[in-house]
Parts: sequence; structure tokens; C-alpha cells
Amino acid sequence: MASYKAPLRDMRFVLFELMDGDELASLPGYEEFTRDLIDPILEEAAKLCEEVLHPLNRTGDEEGCTLENGVVRTPKGFPEAYRLFREGGWTSIACDPAYGGQGLPKAVDTLIVEMICSANLSFSLYPGLTAGAYVSLSNYGSDELKQTYLPKMVEGVWSGAMCLTEPQCGTDLGLLRTRAIPEADGSYKITGAKIFISAGEHDLTENIIYLVLARLPDAPKGIKGISLFLVPKYLVKDDSSLGPRNGVACGAIEHKMGIKASATCVMNFDEAKGWLVGEPHKGMRAMFAMMNAERLAVGMQGLGVAEASYQGAVAYARERLQGRSLSGAKHPDKPADPIIVHPDVRRMLLTQRAYAEGCRALAAWAAKNLDLQQRHPDPEARKEAEDFVALVTPVIKALLTDLGSEAANLGMQVLGGHGYIREHGMEQYVRDCRIAQIYEGTNGVQALDLVGRKLPADAGRLLRRFFHPVSAYIEAKTQQNDKALAEFVQPLGKAFVRLQQATAQVARAGLRNPEEAGAAATDYLRLFGLTALAYLWTRMAEISLAKTEADDPDGFYAAKVATARFYMQRLLPQTSALFSAIMAGGASMMAFEEAAF
Amino acid sequence: MASYKAPLRDMRFVLFELMDGDELASLPGYEEFTRDLIDPILEEAAKLCEEVLHPLNRTGDEEGCTLENGVVRTPKGFPEAYRLFREGGWTSIACDPAYGGQGLPKAVDTLIVEMICSANLSFSLYPGLTAGAYVSLSNYGSDELKQTYLPKMVEGVWSGAMCLTEPQCGTDLGLLRTRAIPEADGSYKITGAKIFISAGEHDLTENIIYLVLARLPDAPKGIKGISLFLVPKYLVKDDSSLGPRNGVACGAIEHKMGIKASATCVMNFDEAKGWLVGEPHKGMRAMFAMMNAERLAVGMQGLGVAEASYQGAVAYARERLQGRSLSGAKHPDKPADPIIVHPDVRRMLLTQRAYAEGCRALAAWAAKNLDLQQRHPDPEARKEAEDFVALVTPVIKALLTDLGSEAANLGMQVLGGHGYIREHGMEQYVRDCRIAQIYEGTNGVQALDLVGRKLPADAGRLLRRFFHPVSAYIEAKTQQNDKALAEFVQPLGKAFVRLQQATAQVARAGLRNPEEAGAAATDYLRLFGLTALAYLWTRMAEISLAKTEADDPDGFYAAKVATARFYMQRLLPQTSALFSAIMAGGASMMAFEEAAF
Repeated sequence: MASYKAPLRDMRFVLFELMDGDELASLPGYEEFTRDLIDPILEEAAKLCEEVLHPLNRTGDEEGCTLENGVVRTPKGFPEAYRLFREGGWTSIACDPAYGGQGLPKAVDTLIVEMICSANLSFSLYPGLTAGAYVSLSNYGSDELKQTYLPKMVEGVWSGAMCLTEPQCGTDLGLLRTRAIPEADGSYKITGAKIFISAGEHDLTENIIYLVLARLPDAPKGIKGISLFLVPKYLVKDDSSLGPRNGVACGAIEHKMGIKASATCVMNFDEAKGWLVGEPHKGMRAMFAMMNAERLAVGMQGLGVAEASYQGAVAYARERLQGRSLSGAKHPDKPADPIIVHPDVRRMLLTQRAYAEGCRALAAWAAKNLDLQQRHPDPEARKEAEDFVALVTPVIKALLTDLGSEAANLGMQVLGGHGYIREHGMEQYVRDCRIAQIYEGTNGVQALDLVGRKLPADAGRLLRRFFHPVSAYIEAKTQQNDKALAEFVQPLGKAFVRLQQATAQVARAGLRNPEEAGAAATDYLRLFGLTALAYLWTRMAEISLAKTEADDPDGFYAAKVATARFYMQRLLPQTSALFSAIMAGGASMMAFEEAAF
Repeated sequence: MASYKAPLRDMRFVLFELMDGDELASLPGYEEFTRDLIDPILEEAAKLCEEVLHPLNRTGDEEGCTLENGVVRTPKGFPEAYRLFREGGWTSIACDPAYGGQGLPKAVDTLIVEMICSANLSFSLYPGLTAGAYVSLSNYGSDELKQTYLPKMVEGVWSGAMCLTEPQCGTDLGLLRTRAIPEADGSYKITGAKIFISAGEHDLTENIIYLVLARLPDAPKGIKGISLFLVPKYLVKDDSSLGPRNGVACGAIEHKMGIKASATCVMNFDEAKGWLVGEPHKGMRAMFAMMNAERLAVGMQGLGVAEASYQGAVAYARERLQGRSLSGAKHPDKPADPIIVHPDVRRMLLTQRAYAEGCRALAAWAAKNLDLQQRHPDPEARKEAEDFVALVTPVIKALLTDLGSEAANLGMQVLGGHGYIREHGMEQYVRDCRIAQIYEGTNGVQALDLVGRKLPADAGRLLRRFFHPVSAYIEAKTQQNDKALAEFVQPLGKAFVRLQQATAQVARAGLRNPEEAGAAATDYLRLFGLTALAYLWTRMAEISLAKTEADDPDGFYAAKVATARFYMQRLLPQTSALFSAIMAGGASMMAFEEAAF
């Protein structure tokens, strides 16, 4: 099976050199998070992921989850691994100390989430869903709800699950039917069927806290009549001990392409007792707080799998002897050369690498802004950071999962037939990663969010949080006329011009006809994302070019420059195709007769 | 589960209108294959695929194959389906009447192969491997071997399997170790282990005929010391009845990502009795005869899955009500509009469609040339056709399977979460199709074949078989100045110029340094393939534009023009990115330090 080592060297580079992570400790509340503290945390997380979670990845896939009499069993080893995870404090790292959390900056937490996703994507969903529920509850729950539920969720003895989808409604939550009837004691009776509920039922925690979207009797139709409720699997007594079972049960688990060790449940609510979270009919707001956090987390799933698949492919490409280098045998003493000598194998490996490292940088940029948004003393700076996060959230969700799937497929291809059989675990990465392009809003929905909401918002205010720094950087570097950097700045500049022109086109055409924006959305998001990676690759190249040979005993910075070069020369050209497709407009798809499909 | 209807209307268009299939009957030996005969054959094949093979597709995936005491059982229903398949004469359609075949033109057979692959990819491998063995044996076997084995293989009561790969050798067959020791009676004792043997063992036929690559004792090292042997599972007596079991057995079956109903076997040969096929040490030649036929067949697998996935996605997109059209409710009477109203859903469906129909045209072009190569009275014309087939074989194998996987992924994405669960069968298409990018030479190997062998062959002679007709067509249409056709001819012309320039670059740089050709190979093959589709889409548009409304009661031709337009505007622009990546050269990948990966 492919092994996994957390890419700590690159994570430190991104956090401290690219994103200036030492600044974190200057933010109020983050004083203790200096490099001295962060480094060992990352190392401990790496150890757990490499030694506990990753060894269960393939066995978990083979065994899957089972449902018997309403009880879901996770695969062998999962309960024990979760216990170690919880006891190590990993459920609480990013949570508020007020509820027992460790208050770790998002910029650090994000790196740990990546490691967990690399090591075992199925496992990551159990704490991941709790983290999502934590966000909704901590932002919108009443003090009583927060005091009752959050400490146990933060500690990890209780977990969370989000109950949105129903058979007739996925993307369009306005169609949902689950009902909530108010009771005299201020609680509600919740009734309805929810599907595709990750971590809906399992054997890892003592209790499961469901956040459920439902309609009150007086609810307006559609999306504006949806409220959010907290429904515990076991009712909780005043002393925090568990009371009787609530009216919620798992009716079935789905058989899926991948993430088989993650239980995807049909959850039936039958007059289950619940409590309102936030205001009546304003459930979507509380849900979106969770959803935005989850979308970034799902992006990390794509990145995590890309990294893991890259590592598996490199290991195989170094070992597999097959054929000779086109420029003459590299290892004439061996029966053949390792396949890593072949240009086409290197193309695949470098594509994986350039995507993984570029996406890590983009995720770190967003994560740092999450910290600024929460902690910066200047409200203006907080607002700017919030805008930036809002803008890039759909990009990170869709781009990182699209590229993650591409990377996983390339990794499998490097192994040839050995990648297609289950033994090496490379095909599992493809299957596991594939869901990330779908859940928490399909990538098409992310693209519509970008072009339909984020671009037009406040006359492009959000967009400027990205366009201004990139534009200023290109201008500054062009003026400096740094010869060594020119090979990066020039293609970045070209891609950025394409992005600007496409933005103008999408805004103009979309204003006239929203279907034009819709037709451009997916290509536009990718153009945006690849340009963002080009900006980050240029900055990473700049940092690395400034290093002397003495600074670079292990060749880390030289490899960074080389990967940046590959990205610019071989991957960034995609932006020209995306630009042409966007500029062609949407008539060719909208004019197609429905009956003719 | 997604249902499947053979796209007979489009197949007839491609065969008779685009490829002038009526010409077939003018070829010696094909006199009877007029449209009157071909039409009912296609209809019968469609019926079998829709009603017998497709219903077993998902159950076959769920159940998979099992191995017990060396016996492989195919899933429930497979033996009965195979019996119907055989009794219907479908194993013999493309075979020589001299051995009981029906001698159907390849141009027709190819369409039937597509249907079988759409309906049940796993099933297709059993007759598919026999067809491959038939090609090697009928071209290189002695008369005695041919008389003994071919009639039963053609009849389908015996099947074939190709035994190439060993644990230490896949792409690089020069490393193979299986030994063949000559016996006094003119036979050989074959000993060695083969892996990844599709249809290596199963319960569909009475006997299995293995074609095995092995080394004779006096064999030169490497690829020039490999011979081909025929090894039957049961030895055959003089009266054609089965004798004792030969020394070959299935040691294990692989657990794979997909094609689970196809048994992928480890085959152990232990002093198995075999006979030489062709000359000693010239096994690769006989193997390549099979391999080229198989590569085209594997291309059809990609196309078949693309078509099936398209159909499944369209059906869902018509039925699934979710959200409202961006231009206002299309079905205000319903709770929501069907998702087919959304531009991004249409983008996915039209991409699938444009790829499937374009690839069908390309496959038909190759298939017709196979017929010309075999049947044309003029040797010059036969040679031209042979050149064309040699040139496009790697393109068809790689392009059709790459686009097949892309299409299958898009089809799954249209269904969202419902595509990721197994129920609808859409994720199975993704898993099944994925192997087609790998086996019979990975797509990277196909690309190297194109740039390393086919391009330079005889100073570009092969290439001219494609470049000349395309160039002449563009010139003629540009001169005619057909206003309606200009929107197709112009982008085709631009893509073709890119292809010509990239060809010159690859040839020039590759001559200096073969690694440059290797670095360009994958992008070049795709550029070639997308340009070929652009040529065919332009010709299909031309035919369709010439039709009046009266000619087009069902809107078939109008949809053809609309799909051609979508292809030109939204998909063909990829060629600009591929061109830039190719022109950037391979230094960025070859300079990367091996230790730095």
C-alpha cells in the first residue's frame, strides 16, 4: 500500500515563509502561537496521521461500514483510532477555549486538516462534521444550547452531523419538507427523512448532535421558510448525562463509489425532540456559516488526496524498473531504468506536485485571512479579510477538489495496471476524492456562487481583495525588472489580463442575461483558480530564488523554482483555452433544443 | 439504473452519410453488405445489448467474479447471456467465412462493438479477447493451428486470452521470463507466471486458448528474443474433442476498481504444452497484429461508456426537478424546473455528446480504412488505408478512452450525490472506463507510439494520410466561401495550423533530443485528436446544413449542427493550451532533480 509522510517541510514554507506565519502571534488571542509551539503540534499531528490513521485507510475501504438493527459499525480499528484522536486533543484544536478548545489559528488547523484528509479521508469526515456543526452552533445557538452541547463536542465524546438533503431536494433546499412542530416547553417535534447524512450514525461517540433543517408550521414557502434545529441522538439530562433515545434512527446506509469507511446515512426523524438554533425561518444563514467552513474543509480533502496520491506515485516511479531512458540507460547495471526517467511520467508527477503545492499555498492564504477576519484589531482589516474569504471559498472548494481528482487520476495512471487493482491503494484515492467535487454544493454550484453572488457583490468589492494585491504585485515586479523572476511574472501577467477581461465579459453579459454568467461559470472559476495559483507560484519562486546554495542544502528551494517553472510552462496555458471558451458565450448551449438531447 | 438505447440513428448517419457506407458493397467480398442487410444486423445487435447485456451490467458489478479451487465463476446471468450471444452468431460476425465467420465489414462491426461496450463493458472483454487472439492466430498461425482452433473460437464455444504481462514486466516486455522448451514432437513446454490476464479463466466456454509470450532457450535478450505460443486450457484431440487438462491454472483473480465482472487472472503455466505461432523470436510481430486490433477495440470501450453515461445523465437531467431556470421558471406548474434548464448542466451534457458523437465519427473513419486496407482492389489504396490506420490507432486508443473517462465523470457529476452512490450505475461507468486508459498500452505509451514511431515513419508518410485530406478540405471550403460553414471551417483551420506547427516542433526537437518528443507526446496526441474531431464535426455540420426542414422531421440534423457549434466554441479551444504547452518544450520536466521529487 502507498505510504504517507506529512509534507512538513512544505507546510512550514507555506506557513512561515509565504504567508508570514510569525505574524499570527501578533494577533490578539494568538500570542502563544509562535513557531516554537506550532512546529511540535504539526509534528505530533503528522505522527498520528502517518501511524494511526493512514494504516486504516485501505482496510477501512475494504471493510466499509455495516448497518444492523439501526446500529452502524465503522471498520475495524476506527473506534480505537478515534479514541486516540480524541485523547490527543485533535477534536478540540480549532475550537474556542471557552468550550474547552485550544484556539489554534486556522492557518495551522488547515494544515492539520490536510494531513488527516491525506491519511484517511473517510475518517476525516467524523471529526469534520462535528467541526461543521460546531461552527453553526457556536455562531447561532443560544447560550443554553452552547453550554449544553459544545463542551462535549469539542472534547469529541459527542459528534455532530448536518441534516440538509432530502430525497426530493439537494441543491434546491427550498423544496424541503421536514416539519418542526412547536411544543409547550419551547422545544420542537421534528419529523421527516434526510438522506446522504455523513456521520449520521456510527460507533465512535456516545452521542450524536444533529443540526436539522426543517419547516415551522407558519413557514413561508421556499428557502425563506427554513429553520435550523438541534436534535440529539440521546436526550441530555441536566447533569449532562445521557437520557433516553430521541426519535431519530438510521434507516439505511448508502453503497458508494468511495469513502466507504464513512457512514452515509438515511436518517429518519419521527417526532424527535429538537431545539431551534438561531431565529425562525433564518435557518439558511446558520447553515451557511457551517457550509462555508465545510467548503474550505472539502477543498482540503481534494488537496489531501492530491498530496497522498503524489507520494504514492513517486514511490512507485522510483522503484518500478521498466524500459530505458530515451537519452540512454541511466542504470545500465539494472535490468531497466526506473520509470521516473521518462518524460511522460515526470509530466504526471510534476502536474500532481504543482497542483498540490499550489493549492496548499492558496488554502493557506485563505486560512490566514480567516485568522485576520477573527482576530485583527482593525475592523477594516477584518472586513477585508472576510471579503477575501467569501470570494475564494467557492474557488477553493471547486478548484482544489477538481485538481485533487485530476491528481489522483494521474497518480493512478503512473502505476498503470498496478494502479487499477486495489492493492496499492491508488484507485481508492480516485474513488474517495471524487465525492469532494459533489458534496457541500457541487462544483457547478460553487462556480455559480462565484459568478452569480461573489463577483457582483457590492460592485465588485470582494473581487478587489484579490485583484488589487495581484495587480500591484505584477506591476511592482514588472517595474523592478527582475530578470530571474521575469519567466514567472510574464505568464502570470498574461493570465491575469485574461482573467480581468473574462471578468468584465461575465459581468457585462451576465447582467443582460444571467444564463450567460451560468454558461461561463465553471470555466471562469477554473481560470480564476489557475491564475491565483500562478500568483502564488510566482511569489514562491521569488522567495526561493532569493536563497543561496548554502541556504538550500536539501534542494528544497531549487525544486520550488523548478516546479513553478513547470506550472507556468505546462499547466498555466490552460487559461488561454478557458478564456476562449468563456468569450464564446453561452448561446451554443442554451439554444440546444431540450428534446434533442 | 440508467437505461441504454443503442444510438442507431447516429450510427447510420456516421456510416452511411459521413463515411459513405454504401461504398462498402463495392469492395470485393463485401457485395452482400448493402444497407438492406446492415440495418437489420444493427437492430438485432441493439436488441441484444439493450435487453440481455445491459440488464446484467450493474448486477455483474455488484457480484463480481469468484475463484474457488482454480475455477472462476462469472456473475449470475453471464453464462446464459454468453450462450445467447454465441447462438446469435455475434462471436463470428467479423471473422473470416473460411472459419465459419460472417465476414462483416469492420465499419459495421465497430458499431456493434461500441454497443456491447456501452451495454456491459465487463462482458465485452470475453468475446473481445477471443477476437484479439483470432487476429494473431489467423495472421500468424500455421494452417494446422488455424484449422484446429479457429472454427471453435469463431463459433464461440472456445474463447481466447492474451498472456503478455508478468509481475516484473508490463510496458517493457523485453524483461519477460516465461520459458518455452522445445519438445521432440514439435510442441513446447511453457513455464512461467502471467498477470493481469483478462478472461484468463471463466465459465463461459468449454476451452480457453491462450496466446502466450515466452522465451526459447536460444533466445536473444530483450524484446528480440520473444516468441508467441498457443496453449490450450484443455488439449485438443484429433477429432476436435477435448482431451486432458493442460498445465495451466488460474492462481488468483485481481480485485479492481471496476470491470468487476471481467475476470482478471494470475495464470500459472507449469510445463504447459504449447505450439509456436509464427517464427521463433518474432512473437512481438504477431502480438502487435492483435494489439493494434485491440487498441481500436479499447478505444470503442471509451466511446461506449461515454455514450451510455450521456444517456444516463440526460435521463436524470430531464426528470430531476431542482431549482428554477435563471431566465425564469420554465415549468411554473411544477415544484421546480428539471435541471436540464441550467447552463452548467447543459455544458456537461453537451460535452459528453460532442465527445461521443465526434469519437464515433473518428472510429468509423478508421474502421472504414480497415475495410479498404483489406478489400480494396488497388494496392496503392490498400497501402494508404493501412498507413491511415497505423497513424490513428494510438490516437483512437488514447483519445477515446481519455474523453470516455471525462464524459463518464461528467455524467456522474450531473447526478450529484445520486451519481456517487451505486444505485444509478453512473459511478460504475467511471470505474469501468478507467481501465481503458491503462491496458493495451497506457495512454502515455500510445502518445509515444504516435510521436516516436508514427510521425517519423518514412519521412512523415503516415502523417500525410491525415494531413492531406484535412488540408485539402479546409482549402476547398475556404475557397467556396460558404457563409454558413465558416463558423466551423475557421476554428478548424486555426486548430490545424496549431497541429502543423506543433508537429514541426515535435519532429525538429525530437530529432535532436528524443526526450523532447516524449515530453510533448501526451499533449500532442490530444491536440491531434481534438483537431481530427474538429475536421469530422465540420464535415458533419456541412452534411447537416444541406438538409432542409422537410429532411429533418425529428431535428436530428439541427442537433448535429448545434453540437458541432458547441464543440467548436467550447471544446476546441483546448488546442490553444495544448499548443502552448508543447511549444514550451520539455526542459521544465527533465531538469527536475530526481531526488527532489
